[in-house]
Amino acid sequence: MFKLEHTDKAARAGRLKLKHGIVPTPIFMPVGTLGVVKTMSSEDLKEIGFPIILSNTYHLWLRPGIEAIEYFKGLHSFMNWGGNILTDSGGFQVFSLALLRKITDEGVTFQSHIDGSRHFFSPENVMDMQKKFGVDIMMVLDECIGYPADKDYAQKSTNRTIEWAKRSRDHYKKNDPQMFCIVQGGMYEDLRQDCARRLVDLDFAGYAIGGLSVGEENDLMYNMISASTAFLPVNKPRYLMGVGEPVDILNAVERGIDMFDCVMPTRNARNGGLFTSKGNVSIKKSEYSLNDEPLDEDCECFVCKNYSKGYLHHLFKNKEMLGLRLNTYHNLSFFYKLMNDIRSAIIRDNFLLFKKDFLEKYVCTT
Amino acid sequence: MFKLEHTDKAARAGRLKLKHGIVPTPIFMPVGTLGVVKTMSSEDLKEIGFPIILSNTYHLWLRPGIEAIEYFKGLHSFMNWGGNILTDSGGFQVFSLALLRKITDEGVTFQSHIDGSRHFFSPENVMDMQKKFGVDIMMVLDECIGYPADKDYAQKSTNRTIEWAKRSRDHYKKNDPQMFCIVQGGMYEDLRQDCARRLVDLDFAGYAIGGLSVGEENDLMYNMISASTAFLPVNKPRYLMGVGEPVDILNAVERGIDMFDCVMPTRNARNGGLFTSKGNVSIKKSEYSLNDEPLDEDCECFVCKNYSKGYLHHLFKNKEMLGLRLNTYHNLSFFYKLMNDIRSAIIRDNFLLFKKDFLEKYVCTT
Repeated sequence: MFKLEHTDKAARAGRLKLKHGIVPTPIFMPVGTLGVVKTMSSEDLKEIGFPIILSNTYHLWLRPGIEAIEYFKGLHSFMNWGGNILTDSGGFQVFSLALLRKITDEGVTFQSHIDGSRHFFSPENVMDMQKKFGVDIMMVLDECIGYPADKDYAQKSTNRTIEWAKRSRDHYKKNDPQMFCIVQGGMYEDLRQDCARRLVDLDFAGYAIGGLSVGEENDLMYNMISASTAFLPVNKPRYLMGVGEPVDILNAVERGIDMFDCVMPTRNARNGGLFTSKGNVSIKKSEYSLNDEPLDEDCECFVCKNYSKGYLHHLFKNKEMLGLRLNTYHNLSFFYKLMNDIRSAIIRDNFLLFKKDFLEKYVCTT
Repeated sequence: MFKLEHTDKAARAGRLKLKHGIVPTPIFMPVGTLGVVKTMSSEDLKEIGFPIILSNTYHLWLRPGIEAIEYFKGLHSFMNWGGNILTDSGGFQVFSLALLRKITDEGVTFQSHIDGSRHFFSPENVMDMQKKFGVDIMMVLDECIGYPADKDYAQKSTNRTIEWAKRSRDHYKKNDPQMFCIVQGGMYEDLRQDCARRLVDLDFAGYAIGGLSVGEENDLMYNMISASTAFLPVNKPRYLMGVGEPVDILNAVERGIDMFDCVMPTRNARNGGLFTSKGNVSIKKSEYSLNDEPLDEDCECFVCKNYSKGYLHHLFKNKEMLGLRLNTYHNLSFFYKLMNDIRSAIIRDNFLLFKKDFLEKYVCTT
């Protein structure tokens, strides 16, 4: 299903063929937690160009619940989204959001952060849930190791993640939808390598790298990425979960990553933090009140073509919801364009120069 | 500028030619308080079909302020709206929102409801403000009489409103933009008639009816509309300010009203109150959680074509902003279609039958 089209050193351009269309890589997936990318309609996402979005099993399980999504014949028709959907396994949310979690080899028991109700996730039932969502890519349940973590615990947890991946594979053998596993291993290079190797033996459709961007130094993250990708097959997509900043995306692409997701463009937008080719803009600053320029002169999105920084400032300052929507639309357009530009540069064997130019322009003026 | 095209008893179909395009009447104007119809982009409003929106002088004066709107070369370019704009005079907001107001024949001094700052509105300066906004229709400053009000006060206040209308006319004689005056007179038929007659002598481009829908019985409102319109010229548009419910719009059209504005479709949408051809729907009700039907089968708006009641319920229940936007889009589409249907019925000499059919369907099932 994944075709590697071109490499520029370790950077890769490919095509991932899924049930709801082709995904050119490297790709960024907007996060649609509750079956909606906050403030965006499915038509907005299509208009920007995204061929795939992410949604969260943990959140969908709690609201609207499996029964509702089954009633609506899956997540695509529920949210009227014709593109692809990847759902995470809920592992990360159970470890970051849920209350009173108790993990055993069998699975994880936790209390909902909404109403305290008790739930149980196992490798098998999160596969069943995602199958019911009708998504295009399902993620296996993993344990996300906190940072810092001692090596004994990291080793034990990584073994469990691998065991869970195996159980997921055994539980669900069909190739439709695709199943991706998750490389863990904490911040230990040898554990990452070992985890990657053992997961590759299980033969998944794609390989994610989890448990990064959890507070560690950037260089440590980059080393863990390299340690993980070194043992991943070239003909399968690699997905760095929960990342991230444009600079992190560029550094990860340089290390052979194909897929990304992050709440940053959407969450920052709702706080007035906007990404531009010249760096970040905080639209709440009063210096933008009398400014009739577009947010980003290099951006051709609907917002930059039609609205000024002054109007965006006015909307944000006065808590007008349209402001949060326009901010989100722009930030997602920025990430979409960034990935497109990265892909073009790779195909032209020009990635490192592109990265250098982008970062010079992006960092110097912020 | 106004052409009366057809009458069906007292109901009228016309065309109002303004700087930013032709407005077929009867028309409903969405309310864009702060230079934005809450949750809607200007493109959304255009897509629904609105040829004109309303904005509020009082609010714009306070935020972003005259200086900002002048900097952006007017309200149209500030909000990227290519259609027409009518601004009210601020009179109603000064009397309903502002603090510590003091009214004299000269004008009204008040404190901002935002920060308590002191301001002064006169017939002359609100004309100047609206001219700077660059709008298509300007409203004269009036005093909105509370309800109930004794006749002496109503008489005195109505005289002041007429005097202010005269001063506005003297201050601003050009015909571009158009200036509308406002018939007041409280709930007194003779004062309404007298006010209408005296304003007509001053010869305005259009005549609004203000001070209604302020808590009075519906029949009293209808009587006041009839008392006002009886003396208004047939060849000028008539605008019932701040109304309203579909049933009120129908009854007012029946009495010869051409123009309407109201926050109801937009405000109700944000509270989950949705208008449908079968009556009102409160989308927060759990009965909609498993419902894959469109909100209104008779509606062809973007929301009804693409999303289910179940999804709208999910979004609303989980406080997703997209829900408020889709609700608003639908409600405005409902009002737009209602006005279009009313206009077609008038042109077919079929208004009363249309009204009867609409209300039977609309009321019976709520």
